[in-house]
Amino acid sequence: MATTRLPSAGFSITIRISITADASAIGRLTTCVGEAGAIVTALDVVDSDPSSVIVDLTCDTADSAHADQVVKALDALEGVEVRKVSDRTFLLHLGGKIEVNSKVGLRTRDELSRAYTPGVARVCLAIAENPADARRLTIKRNTVAVVTDGTAVLGLGNIGPAAALPVMEGKAALFKRFGGVDAWPVVLDTQDPDEIVSIVKAIAPAYGGINLEDIAAPRCFEIEARLREALNIPVFHDDQHGTAICVLAALTNALRVVGKRLADVRVVVSGAGAAGTAIMKLLLRQGVGDIIAYDRPGALHRGMEGLNSDWQWLVDHTNKENYAGDLRGAIRGADVFIGVSAPNLLTGDDIATMAENSIVFALANPDPEVDPREARKHAAVVATGRSDQPNQINNVLAFPGVFRGMLDAHAEEFTEEMALAAARAIADVVGEEKINPTVIVPSVFDPRVAPAVAAAVRAAAQAAAASATSGATSPASAGAPSGAGAPATDPVGDEPGTLPTHP
Amino acid sequence: MATTRLPSAGFSITIRISITADASAIGRLTTCVGEAGAIVTALDVVDSDPSSVIVDLTCDTADSAHADQVVKALDALEGVEVRKVSDRTFLLHLGGKIEVNSKVGLRTRDELSRAYTPGVARVCLAIAENPADARRLTIKRNTVAVVTDGTAVLGLGNIGPAAALPVMEGKAALFKRFGGVDAWPVVLDTQDPDEIVSIVKAIAPAYGGINLEDIAAPRCFEIEARLREALNIPVFHDDQHGTAICVLAALTNALRVVGKRLADVRVVVSGAGAAGTAIMKLLLRQGVGDIIAYDRPGALHRGMEGLNSDWQWLVDHTNKENYAGDLRGAIRGADVFIGVSAPNLLTGDDIATMAENSIVFALANPDPEVDPREARKHAAVVATGRSDQPNQINNVLAFPGVFRGMLDAHAEEFTEEMALAAARAIADVVGEEKINPTVIVPSVFDPRVAPAVAAAVRAAAQAAAASATSGATSPASAGAPSGAGAPATDPVGDEPGTLPTHP
Repeated sequence: MATTRLPSAGFSITIRISITADASAIGRLTTCVGEAGAIVTALDVVDSDPSSVIVDLTCDTADSAHADQVVKALDALEGVEVRKVSDRTFLLHLGGKIEVNSKVGLRTRDELSRAYTPGVARVCLAIAENPADARRLTIKRNTVAVVTDGTAVLGLGNIGPAAALPVMEGKAALFKRFGGVDAWPVVLDTQDPDEIVSIVKAIAPAYGGINLEDIAAPRCFEIEARLREALNIPVFHDDQHGTAICVLAALTNALRVVGKRLADVRVVVSGAGAAGTAIMKLLLRQGVGDIIAYDRPGALHRGMEGLNSDWQWLVDHTNKENYAGDLRGAIRGADVFIGVSAPNLLTGDDIATMAENSIVFALANPDPEVDPREARKHAAVVATGRSDQPNQINNVLAFPGVFRGMLDAHAEEFTEEMALAAARAIADVVGEEKINPTVIVPSVFDPRVAPAVAAAVRAAAQAAAASATSGATSPASAGAPSGAGAPATDPVGDEPGTLPTHP
Repeated sequence: MATTRLPSAGFSITIRISITADASAIGRLTTCVGEAGAIVTALDVVDSDPSSVIVDLTCDTADSAHADQVVKALDALEGVEVRKVSDRTFLLHLGGKIEVNSKVGLRTRDELSRAYTPGVARVCLAIAENPADARRLTIKRNTVAVVTDGTAVLGLGNIGPAAALPVMEGKAALFKRFGGVDAWPVVLDTQDPDEIVSIVKAIAPAYGGINLEDIAAPRCFEIEARLREALNIPVFHDDQHGTAICVLAALTNALRVVGKRLADVRVVVSGAGAAGTAIMKLLLRQGVGDIIAYDRPGALHRGMEGLNSDWQWLVDHTNKENYAGDLRGAIRGADVFIGVSAPNLLTGDDIATMAENSIVFALANPDPEVDPREARKHAAVVATGRSDQPNQINNVLAFPGVFRGMLDAHAEEFTEEMALAAARAIADVVGEEKINPTVIVPSVFDPRVAPAVAAAVRAAAQAAAASATSGATSPASAGAPSGAGAPATDPVGDEPGTLPTHP
C-alpha cells in the first residue's frame, strides 16, 4: 500500500538550493516539487546576488525514498544546484526531546541550604520514619517511568533499547503536554523477563506509576502480571490498556452512530497480541455479543493445539460458534472489524461482505489492514491510527489522563473499572450532538479530554479504595500530614499555599 | 558539639502568631526569638483587627529541637497564641524538586508528527543502524543517572532508597543549575552489589554518564570497578572522586598559602572509607610526601591482620615509618590533617601539636572532627564542609563541571588525569592574588568554576582519546554525521543552527 502514502510532516525536509535569478526561477522549483508529489510548506530566501538566489525550500514528502526523488528532481533542473538537505524531524530530535529542570531556586546560600545539605537531611529522616511521606515530599507524587526493552517498538519490531529511546522521550513529552505528568524513559538493555521485573521493582521507589511500553507479547503479559503483584504503584501497559480504552471509547460512539448495542454485535479482532488481547478482554468485560480472534494460525478456536495460556484463555471466552476458517470468512456478516495486526489483509470487497452498517477499525500503522478509502465505500464507520484520516484512534487520548487520575488518587493499582471509566469519559467528550461517522473520538488536541479522563479514573480509584477498606487507611489518604507532633512539629501544615515559600 | 551549632536557613521555620495589638507586641516577639538563640529573617503581617494582629514570623533555628524551643518560648508569652508552624525546608520539598519538561513544541498535528509517530520511527531506525547516533539524537548526549542504594546518605547512614530520594533530587537540581546537565535520580530498592551492577548496566543506554552517590564503602569500590569495566560511559562516584578533586584543589591553594610543597608534607587522613581512600589515592598520584591513614582499628599499618583489599592497598602505599598508634599521636608533627570521618575526634590542643603552619580540613558534616574555631587558634589554614564557616569544601565545585566536560567530549570513562585537571582548574579559579588563609577555594556560586572545570576535563579527555587511538575513531568524533548518503540523506547536516526548525 506504499502508493496510498501521503506526504506528511513526519517526513518534512528543508532543501537549500542555489538557483539562477530569473523571473520564473522560484516558480520552476515549486512546480517541480509538486510534480514529484511533495507539498511545499515554506520557501525562504536565504541570500541573493545579481545573478542567483539561495532559498530554503521546505516540503512534506511521503517517505525517505520519496524525499530522495524530490531532491533528485530538483537537482536535475537547469540552473539549479542543491546545496544541502536537512531533515526537520532529525533536527527536532538533536540532543533529545526532554530535559530535567529544577523546580526550586538555587540562587543563594539559603536556598542551597534548604534544597540540599544541611536542610534536606530532615526531609530524608521524615521519609525514613514514615515512608508514605515520599508521595508528598519527593517527585514520586507526579512521576511515571516509561519502561521498555525495545522488543516491539512502533511497527519496527525488536530494535533494542537505544533505538527505542526517541519513542520513550516522545512519550514523556506527551505525558507532560497532555497530563502534566513527569515521565522518564527507562530503556533496558535486557530482554529477560526475570531481569526486567527485578529492575522495575528496584527502581520503583522514585515513581508513582509504571508505564510499560513496546514490550512484545506474550512476555509483556507475564512482566505486567508479576509487577502488579510485586508493586504498590499502578502498572499500565499502554500498548494493551491504552489501546483498549481508546478502542472501547471509539466503538461506543461508533455503535451510537449505527444504532447497535454492544451486546448484539459480533466483533472480529485481527491480531491477538498485546493490544488485541487487551481490547478483547475489555470488550468481554463490557458485555460484547461475540468475538472471533484471528492471528497467524487462523481464527482461534477450541480444538487448536499447543496454545499458550493467553490464547487458551481467549479460546475459552470467545468464538461461540467455534469458527475455524480464515479472516475473510470470519468477517462475513460481522458487525465490527478491529485490526491491530498487519497491513493490507483485506480489500474493499471483503468489507462489503460484513453486516449492514458495519464498523471497521483498521489500526495497523502506518499502513492499515484495509485501505480506509476502500473500506469507507462499504462500512458505515471507519477509523484508523493515522493522523491524515478521519477518526484517528490515538493512545494519547487515554494515557496522560489515566496516569493524572491515578497519581492524584495515590492509586496503588490500575483496574478494569478505571479502564471502563476512562473509555466512557473519552466517548462522552465528543457529545451526542457532535457524533457522526467521521467524528467518533475527540481530537487529541481537545483540552477537555485529559481532565475528563483524569476525573473519571480518580473517581474510580477512590470508589474502590472506599469500598475495599472502609474505616481503614485508604491509599488516597497517604497524603495526610504526618510527623512529630503539633504545633511545632507539623512539618508542612494543612495549607501550604497560605504560607510563602520565598517571602 | 551540639552547642556549636548555629542557626541556619536549612532549619528555617515560619510561625503564624496571633498577638494582642499593643505598641510593643512585635518587639516582644522578636526579642523572645533572639533570646531563644534563633535569628528572625522575615516578619509579615497577615491580618489584623482593632485588638489583635496575625503575623508570619520566619526565623533560622539550629535544629529541630531548637525550633521546638523557640515555638514554646513564643507560645508562653502573654497575649501570644501560636496558630501554626510551617517548615520552609519541608514546604520547598513538597511535590519534589525536579521536573521533566519537553524541549519540543507539541501544539500542532505537524509537531506531533515529527516528535512522535510517524516521524520518530525514522530516528529510531537511524539509531538502530548506527548506535553512536544515540549521542546526537537522544537525551543520552546530556543526561546522567544519579544512582544510589541509600546505604550511606549524607551523615544519616543506611536509610534506604525512598528516604535518599530528596538528596538525589537535590543533586539533579545542582547538576542543572551549575553544569547544564540533565540528571535523573535512580534510587534502588536493593543493596546487593550484583543486582546494582546489572541494573545500572541495563539502564545505561539512556545515559551519557553514571554518578554513583551515597553508596557505603567498601561495596562502592567493587560496584564502581565492575561498572567501569562493563560500560562505555564514564562512571564517577561523587563521594570518592568529587570529594578527592575538591580536597586536592583546596590543599593546592592551602600549600600555596603556607609556602610548602606537596612532596614535602606529611598528611594524616582520618576516615579510610569512600572519600578518604579516593583522597589518598589522588594525593599519592600527585606525589604527596607521606600519608597516615586512620580508621576505627587505628592507624593503618603493616602487620595488621584481616584487612580487606582496599585497606591492604593503603597499607602498602602509605605510612612510611609504619606508625601504629592513635590519631592524636599521628597528627603530632604532621603538616596536614584531613578528616572525612566523625565529629569531635580532636581538640584545639591536639592541633597545637602539629607542625608549624599546619593545615586542617575537618570535613565531617554537620559537625567537624574538630571545632574549626578552636583549630584556627593553632593551624594556619582551616577548612570544613560547612557553609557557615570560611573555606567550605563542597563537591558542587567539581561534579557539575566534570560531567559537563565528559559529556561534551563524549568521554567513555572517567580518568585520574581528569581528576587532576579538574582540581587544578578549581584551584586556579581563585587566582594567586586572591588566595589567603580564608579563601583557598572559590565560592560555589562563582560562575567561572564549572566552565573552567568542564574545559579542563574536556581537554584531558580529548588528549587521552588522541593519544590512545591516533588514526582510529576516537570517542570524541561520535557526533559526526552518519546516515544514508549525501546530499538527500544527510539527516541533520553539519550546521543545524543555520536552518530553522520551526520556520
